[in-house]
Amino acid sequence: MPGAAPDPSDGPTPEPARRPSRRTVIAGAGVAAVAGAGALTVAAASAGTVQAPAGAAGADWETCLGIARAVLVRDDEDQPLVPRYADVLLKNGLPRSRRPAKKVLIVGAGPAGLTAAHLLREAGHKVTVIEANANRVGGRIKTFRTGGHERSPAPFADPKQYAEAGAMRIPDSHPLVTGLIDGLGLKRRRFHLVDVDAAGHPAYRTWIHVNGVRVRRADYASNPQTLNRSFGVPAAYESLTAAQIVRNAFAPVRKEIEGKKDRELVEGWARVIQRYGHMSMFRYLTEEAKLDERTIDLIGTVENLTSRLHLAFVHSFIGASLISPDTAFFELPGGTATLVDALYARVDDLVRLDRRATRITHGEGKVSVETVSEGRDGPVERETFTGDTAIITVPFSGLRHIPVAPALSYGKRRAITEMHYDAATKVLLEFSRRWWEFDEADWKRELEAVKPGLHRSYQTARTPEDGSLLGAHPSVPEGHISPAQRAHYAACRPVTRDQPEAARVIGGGSATDNPNRFMFQPSYPVEGSSGGVVLASYSWSDDALKWDSLDDAERYPRALAGMQAVFGQRIEVFYTGVGRTQSWMRDPYAYGEASVLLPGQHTELFPHVRKAEGSLHFAGCHTSIKPAWIEGALESAVRTALEVHSAP
Amino acid sequence: MPGAAPDPSDGPTPEPARRPSRRTVIAGAGVAAVAGAGALTVAAASAGTVQAPAGAAGADWETCLGIARAVLVRDDEDQPLVPRYADVLLKNGLPRSRRPAKKVLIVGAGPAGLTAAHLLREAGHKVTVIEANANRVGGRIKTFRTGGHERSPAPFADPKQYAEAGAMRIPDSHPLVTGLIDGLGLKRRRFHLVDVDAAGHPAYRTWIHVNGVRVRRADYASNPQTLNRSFGVPAAYESLTAAQIVRNAFAPVRKEIEGKKDRELVEGWARVIQRYGHMSMFRYLTEEAKLDERTIDLIGTVENLTSRLHLAFVHSFIGASLISPDTAFFELPGGTATLVDALYARVDDLVRLDRRATRITHGEGKVSVETVSEGRDGPVERETFTGDTAIITVPFSGLRHIPVAPALSYGKRRAITEMHYDAATKVLLEFSRRWWEFDEADWKRELEAVKPGLHRSYQTARTPEDGSLLGAHPSVPEGHISPAQRAHYAACRPVTRDQPEAARVIGGGSATDNPNRFMFQPSYPVEGSSGGVVLASYSWSDDALKWDSLDDAERYPRALAGMQAVFGQRIEVFYTGVGRTQSWMRDPYAYGEASVLLPGQHTELFPHVRKAEGSLHFAGCHTSIKPAWIEGALESAVRTALEVHSAP
Repeated sequence: MPGAAPDPSDGPTPEPARRPSRRTVIAGAGVAAVAGAGALTVAAASAGTVQAPAGAAGADWETCLGIARAVLVRDDEDQPLVPRYADVLLKNGLPRSRRPAKKVLIVGAGPAGLTAAHLLREAGHKVTVIEANANRVGGRIKTFRTGGHERSPAPFADPKQYAEAGAMRIPDSHPLVTGLIDGLGLKRRRFHLVDVDAAGHPAYRTWIHVNGVRVRRADYASNPQTLNRSFGVPAAYESLTAAQIVRNAFAPVRKEIEGKKDRELVEGWARVIQRYGHMSMFRYLTEEAKLDERTIDLIGTVENLTSRLHLAFVHSFIGASLISPDTAFFELPGGTATLVDALYARVDDLVRLDRRATRITHGEGKVSVETVSEGRDGPVERETFTGDTAIITVPFSGLRHIPVAPALSYGKRRAITEMHYDAATKVLLEFSRRWWEFDEADWKRELEAVKPGLHRSYQTARTPEDGSLLGAHPSVPEGHISPAQRAHYAACRPVTRDQPEAARVIGGGSATDNPNRFMFQPSYPVEGSSGGVVLASYSWSDDALKWDSLDDAERYPRALAGMQAVFGQRIEVFYTGVGRTQSWMRDPYAYGEASVLLPGQHTELFPHVRKAEGSLHFAGCHTSIKPAWIEGALESAVRTALEVHSAP
Repeated sequence: MPGAAPDPSDGPTPEPARRPSRRTVIAGAGVAAVAGAGALTVAAASAGTVQAPAGAAGADWETCLGIARAVLVRDDEDQPLVPRYADVLLKNGLPRSRRPAKKVLIVGAGPAGLTAAHLLREAGHKVTVIEANANRVGGRIKTFRTGGHERSPAPFADPKQYAEAGAMRIPDSHPLVTGLIDGLGLKRRRFHLVDVDAAGHPAYRTWIHVNGVRVRRADYASNPQTLNRSFGVPAAYESLTAAQIVRNAFAPVRKEIEGKKDRELVEGWARVIQRYGHMSMFRYLTEEAKLDERTIDLIGTVENLTSRLHLAFVHSFIGASLISPDTAFFELPGGTATLVDALYARVDDLVRLDRRATRITHGEGKVSVETVSEGRDGPVERETFTGDTAIITVPFSGLRHIPVAPALSYGKRRAITEMHYDAATKVLLEFSRRWWEFDEADWKRELEAVKPGLHRSYQTARTPEDGSLLGAHPSVPEGHISPAQRAHYAACRPVTRDQPEAARVIGGGSATDNPNRFMFQPSYPVEGSSGGVVLASYSWSDDALKWDSLDDAERYPRALAGMQAVFGQRIEVFYTGVGRTQSWMRDPYAYGEASVLLPGQHTELFPHVRKAEGSLHFAGCHTSIKPAWIEGALESAVRTALEVHSAP
């Protein structure tokens, strides 16, 4: 056929398939690899294979078993990998090996790249880490803090303040990351996902504010009717909380795994993947759980499902299963970036900043990675790095823009093309006082300090709406609020002016149906500061993209208005005029918050995601079933370090 | 319950629903409205209602009939509305009325707002149009052109050149927009969606370049095997083109409507909505059409379905049905913005630029819209506009950030919160010659003019790859290519260096599986210019979001590399160094390309989208079933003008 010359860079042409046969290719760094004996192998059907019923859209059983093992972090023999990973990561490092040391390139200095670099260097390999950012490492761990990545001397008016653009909480059910934090000698403390009382016990005093109804979480739990009726849910659901309805809706799926262990547990998960892997959350809720639209509106709004209704049911289900309501969360004093500092300190001599990978060539035991600098302060520099092997930690959404020669396998190319990345956006606002901890007497005292009678004026909605009271409290430092800002704040002010009672909460988060969606207070004061930075809006997917259309500066007045709708107008007096915001989808190196897969992608794409190709290995949280979690990145770091270390 | 005070701004609390009863509320501007007699009414079940089988996720029949009427642009009696709309829009204007003239606010100066403004003013109403942009009107009609919206004197190196950031082609099956263009005395000419020969006949010489296989469309049509095999499709599909496979896959759905008319056609569409409205394209293709993953990869890549697999099947099906393969497309010489110029010229005295709506208050026959200026050249100005009634044309993704008091109805609020907007991104590159029209002799002559032997050097891949030949042809004007640009281009160059034969195409578009996805050549030369601007990349949804993560300047070298992968490296000599790009999802006033609904949203949300609320009316293409098309915006303009005109 004229003009149809196969391209020399084309990868192996795939075999034709009636129904594509997808043997599992989930590459666990299994016993063989840990023993230094073997490369990754395509798992054959194991002896105990159960023939599960084949659904219309169900994937083949071996593939489902492979995904189940990835969920549970088990090897092809169903044995848990985490103890072995923990041994490598936290105790003994990579096993001794008689193989020659390799020259290893690692693309990306996030937690996966920094950790793999350390393990491999300790084992005698020669490592170079290539990082696109010129001013920081850490990937989606990013703390706005003084002396951090930004050029401005301090991100907030109070230089002691800091806040998280990315990872902010670490579940105690994640043994690698908690072990690593402890092993590095870092302090960790509880992150209050639920607000607490003075004794540190859950108080459930944060607000749910939807359909114009404002209720504290404790009151909603004891009496869900008023709020549920505001959605018009059927009578059968009126007396259940949104969380209970979700729990009940997921129960049939949970039954497949609850109380099971070993092979039974693996098979339970495989059945979940096979039966539900092709379903969106919308489909699961409507067709399996048989919920009506109004009830889906309720649970979607309160339990943060709405924006991800079109994404894979199993993504959310896996998340809900691996992190139970009883899971404790931790945070790092000084910010999550202090973990990055510690990881970076071990390998900073190996890391080349300001080197964005633009092209990868591999083959015959050689890899070269071409890079380009941002060129912000001088000429654009190009530099080519070469090695025997490489670990690529770049998110697949970003890898899409990096040509690889010769071409990767068909399956990997499809995964790079199609793997869905979700949007997530945060808007952070700084206040000069932690007003959310106030009781009404505190409010009265502080507002009277601004102007006598002001407490009452706010309660009766007789305060000016022109922005003149923005930052009016004497504790707010001068110089951060311009006339233009006042005008924008006044223009974007909320439509309601009712003043609820003092929030009096420590930590925890509120939910709203306004664009802010989810708001989190800091769990602790920052030492030496009487103020605090609030996560005024944390949103995902379509909710986040609506913020992403706005320039940074446009977001702050809107985020403040959204908070005022929940907490009342009066919080404005403490606003310092300073905010920070992070759109992960707009980030030029992150290309999204995380790989949140679409229906069907776990079985179609995931088996190809982590498979090594020649001397290229693939790490990063997207190669685990814990996207967006540091634990997933660490699993992948140990796995690929083992792969590289044990390769011939 | 303490703390659970209903908010005064709350809209009517919806009635509890076992299964929510969704009577159709599709507000067609029916006979009554045209006659000036009636407001919009909730349609009751009409006499001939057919009880269709209720599926698990199927919506009720009345709702489906309502959507069907919206698809077909019919009134509640199934009578076509387009002739009546055409009469108003193109001939007689709004009907005479004895009702008093109203003060009308129109928010948004896109085609819907500008058109409604003209109709209402002509009918004697007092109209003000409020537009957020300070430098242009037209909404998602936006042409990069000299003297256009940009501050720079000319968008391209050749000031005669122009190119479309948004709407670029107008189907001849859209009578309102084609009629309007003709009525305004504007010239239109064929837009070549398929490339043509010198006589203007389809030539199908553009490329499909996937899996390393490059084939002209005509060759693919006559012999699809090589390309299809590169996807590993089953033998049954090897000999069909991607377009044929899609056509066959859609056939059972098409059967519901083909050859039908009047009430039967309405019911056919209603059955399509009921049976398939809750399905994603992925689900339809896997479970209904029973296609395997590889075949879905093929049709997704070539026919542009991949990035929208998770979106509503009916969105794509409706598009495919209303625009057949035989549809002719038109374009406007000088750019689509010349249509906006003509619409604007009729009402420019009514339009207030630089007024972004931030808040809407309504009730008791009064509407006020608060606005804020961008404040780029001076202080931020706030201005409040008042009227008797308002037409809101803002996309719902943007309306999400505009508080409305008192609150809109529950259904409208859900639609504003949930309605999915898709991403679409264009990257345009300027060349000093229309190299795509060249034959090999032209190439030889022009390359030899750069440097003797260069033609051969490109064919044998012996040209330098350092960017030194970028813009090397004498026709490229000096001064647009910096050393930094050369470095970035060299860094991002494609991995393959094979040189295909001269493209020799006029108009039309090529498809690739690299990030560019779809490329379109201009259908005509620009008079007085020997160059041309190519749409180097046009992508949607997840494909587009991967470009959106990149800053504008980062996109051009990558887009050129993607074109080079298809057409060969040698095109670089004509690159002027100037590009333009448009991310509709990142646009601060558009908030997305268009409302491309998720599975289930047609029946759950759409009935609430266009319903008037008190004195607020809703227009814009998202209120039609032709999102992203000017025709849909015009339908909505006439509908809302009639609503306002005939309201008491």
